[in-house]
Amino acid sequence: MNKQQNILIIGAGLCGSLLALRLGQRGYNVSVYEMRSDLRKVDISAGRSINLAFSNRGNKAMKLVGIQDKVKALCIPMNGRMIHDKEGNTFLSNYSGRDHEYINSVSRGGLNALLLDEAEKHENVSIYFNKKCKSVDFKKTTALFKDYETNSEFIEDADAIIATDGAGSAMRKSYYLGKKFLFSFSQDYLTHGYKELSIHPTETGDYKTHKNALHIWPRGTFMLIALPNLDGSFTVTLFLSYDEGKYNFNNLTTPEIVSEFFQKEFPDALQLMPNLIEDFFNNPTAALGTVKCSPWHYKGNTLLMGDSAHAIVPFYGQGMNASFEDVVEFDAVLDQKLGNWETVFKTYEKTRKKDTDAIADLAIDNFHEMKDHVANPIFQEKRKLEMALEQNFPNDYASKYSLVTFNENIGYREAMLKGRAQDKAILNMLADGNISTDFLLGEDERHHATKEKLKAILEKVKTETQEILEEDKIAGLK
Amino acid sequence: MNKQQNILIIGAGLCGSLLALRLGQRGYNVSVYEMRSDLRKVDISAGRSINLAFSNRGNKAMKLVGIQDKVKALCIPMNGRMIHDKEGNTFLSNYSGRDHEYINSVSRGGLNALLLDEAEKHENVSIYFNKKCKSVDFKKTTALFKDYETNSEFIEDADAIIATDGAGSAMRKSYYLGKKFLFSFSQDYLTHGYKELSIHPTETGDYKTHKNALHIWPRGTFMLIALPNLDGSFTVTLFLSYDEGKYNFNNLTTPEIVSEFFQKEFPDALQLMPNLIEDFFNNPTAALGTVKCSPWHYKGNTLLMGDSAHAIVPFYGQGMNASFEDVVEFDAVLDQKLGNWETVFKTYEKTRKKDTDAIADLAIDNFHEMKDHVANPIFQEKRKLEMALEQNFPNDYASKYSLVTFNENIGYREAMLKGRAQDKAILNMLADGNISTDFLLGEDERHHATKEKLKAILEKVKTETQEILEEDKIAGLK
Repeated sequence: MNKQQNILIIGAGLCGSLLALRLGQRGYNVSVYEMRSDLRKVDISAGRSINLAFSNRGNKAMKLVGIQDKVKALCIPMNGRMIHDKEGNTFLSNYSGRDHEYINSVSRGGLNALLLDEAEKHENVSIYFNKKCKSVDFKKTTALFKDYETNSEFIEDADAIIATDGAGSAMRKSYYLGKKFLFSFSQDYLTHGYKELSIHPTETGDYKTHKNALHIWPRGTFMLIALPNLDGSFTVTLFLSYDEGKYNFNNLTTPEIVSEFFQKEFPDALQLMPNLIEDFFNNPTAALGTVKCSPWHYKGNTLLMGDSAHAIVPFYGQGMNASFEDVVEFDAVLDQKLGNWETVFKTYEKTRKKDTDAIADLAIDNFHEMKDHVANPIFQEKRKLEMALEQNFPNDYASKYSLVTFNENIGYREAMLKGRAQDKAILNMLADGNISTDFLLGEDERHHATKEKLKAILEKVKTETQEILEEDKIAGLK
Repeated sequence: MNKQQNILIIGAGLCGSLLALRLGQRGYNVSVYEMRSDLRKVDISAGRSINLAFSNRGNKAMKLVGIQDKVKALCIPMNGRMIHDKEGNTFLSNYSGRDHEYINSVSRGGLNALLLDEAEKHENVSIYFNKKCKSVDFKKTTALFKDYETNSEFIEDADAIIATDGAGSAMRKSYYLGKKFLFSFSQDYLTHGYKELSIHPTETGDYKTHKNALHIWPRGTFMLIALPNLDGSFTVTLFLSYDEGKYNFNNLTTPEIVSEFFQKEFPDALQLMPNLIEDFFNNPTAALGTVKCSPWHYKGNTLLMGDSAHAIVPFYGQGMNASFEDVVEFDAVLDQKLGNWETVFKTYEKTRKKDTDAIADLAIDNFHEMKDHVANPIFQEKRKLEMALEQNFPNDYASKYSLVTFNENIGYREAMLKGRAQDKAILNMLADGNISTDFLLGEDERHHATKEKLKAILEKVKTETQEILEEDKIAGLK
């Protein structure tokens, strides 16, 4: 594969623009076709989440392309979850017991614009907007586009086509409808949808509530969350069933009932949202789905990457991070100099798919954790214990959340297996009274006697976790 | 819902013809449209498995419609798996320690013909052949058909449409392409395909190998199986990877290499199959897929049932049994007199889907068990122990296989959860040396001292199984 090869990228979203930048840095001739207008010139935020959680795996990709400092300027650190109960009491639950581990709220538009700017600095990278991919002929390695500016259609060919065209990928649809090979595919919707709302800044431009947290109002079968933006506002998202429960998207049809719902369930949030009704009825209700498929590639001709290959629900804050990590993993496969695209694509999928499957499943787990478990006493006790373990033994313990979010040097699948076993070990030992966190109450958690007790618990957790992993292995379970 | 309602059934395969019979018995006006010719008049076996495993759940449905005795005449009992090693040694592994528990080989065509005959005895049931469903308008409750006899198209309407049109269901495709509601859907292919072969009867019409068993030649990454037919022949199926391993479907392209493969891997089977090469190159290689979807119904208008809702791989011998059980479950929901089709369909899916999801997953598990684990010492030891437990404590122990296959009064999901926990308990206790089956070697297994030892093991297995289920529950795992 000489580097004068022509690579066609479909979609200039977060994954496509990062991929274009990286392949540009590596010397390939890269053409990117994007169906939307250039977001640096036109405001096209509608219908997509305004801000996103950005963490270590995403940052690993930013380091790879050398723009981590520029990205940092776009980030607002969120050190933990701020949980709001129905009475308006708040409770901060840190994401990690290690101070340097936190996630960030980042503007999707700002980050995408930066990536486009950086990619276009390479003269071997060209980006075309308002060109919608209609289908891909993966046998011929050509793509059919509609030009929204001229209303005409045209075909482009390339040495390889990589589709980063998101959850509704046109190329994936061509794989599915083409029936030229056995294409495993799933789309799974949650029974819940979501709607974006907002908390505006104060008149002086300040944040109306705690800035450095991801706010959650967990209510068992539904929840509200809020992430800060650089302009002092928060983007708020309501996750709610379409048709079950007393209040649901299907029956929240009048301003009166929406106000009643928020007054009853989220009174402190309602105080900050005089604009609620306007937002609620102006903004769309969108679905939450998981997409998995295989194979991602057709021979050495075409490859799916990012959401087009593995769209996930947003509850682990890993959608963007996983897509960025795709580019890091793909880059590592390119470093192996395997000689042809088919081997590259095959090797990449073999390495990567187990991890994207895992984060898809973890994201569903976290949906239940966020809306429900965070308000459950035994889960809170586990969380408290894990914080103490991470604080006291920063090199010896990492919770499932930390493994997934802050340990970018292990894959999602390993993080999932180890994290789930740890959770199971701790929850069962707490339930059996085999370990207890009573001694943490009110005491200085770095006190010597406390540390001794924690050390004993850490050993028990490690032993039990190892045993759970062993037992699953012997039983032939994954 | 008065019984003069018109029900349109798409597909007169095993599920559709049973459903037509049952709804006919209940007094509904039933019209069935089938794309194939009437199999009672034309031989249309090509491309579908010739014989199937029939067991308790299927028989429950036959009892419901009162034809269990007629079906019994079509059955050949198979008491266990006869395992063939590479040297041609055989080893019989019973399906159960209880003598009255066995599965049956039944002719697909013979059983389908019986169901059609029985359904047509009801004057309120009409069956039309050579009418292919092209699409369903689920909002209007109409279906578009192509008449293969006249080559014309026509539309039928009904009060409710039930599609039993198999894994490639036209109605499911209409749900998917219609995009009128959130339709979760998956198709998952194994990396293996299958090909049907045959062992002919002897010249005097006898069976060339043991009649009352399901024969397996397990080889780790591939396998051959054989089921007996009433005419003295066996239908043989090769399950093999498309493209991995030394021999695979993609490289078995000449008579020489096919002979070499069988000579090396299945020498005793090859002896019985002088017709191997002819079968191999005449018969198609087919894919193995799992289909899951939800919702099955659109309001009270349409419903998917049988393979159209939940196609599974054949390795548990439960595909037909699960589809027959669908009709039993649907019938039980009709007995609740819920007043309208929407409530009936919704209630049916809510009750049934967890079980069809479970059997789909169990069937994948059994693929690995059959091709690999049955030849693995620790799995053989587990199996030997379970047989002894079932023989000695017939009312107190049922293996996973027995729970799934012979315990028709519990659902597949319950059978899966309990069966997996039991397997995990036994395998881990064997691996840890916590229990042992040495004392079973060569002894009379109904001997008093043996029974005492078995009783102690049974208690350990029960305790450990319960603990595994509890621990999963506390960890919030399913």
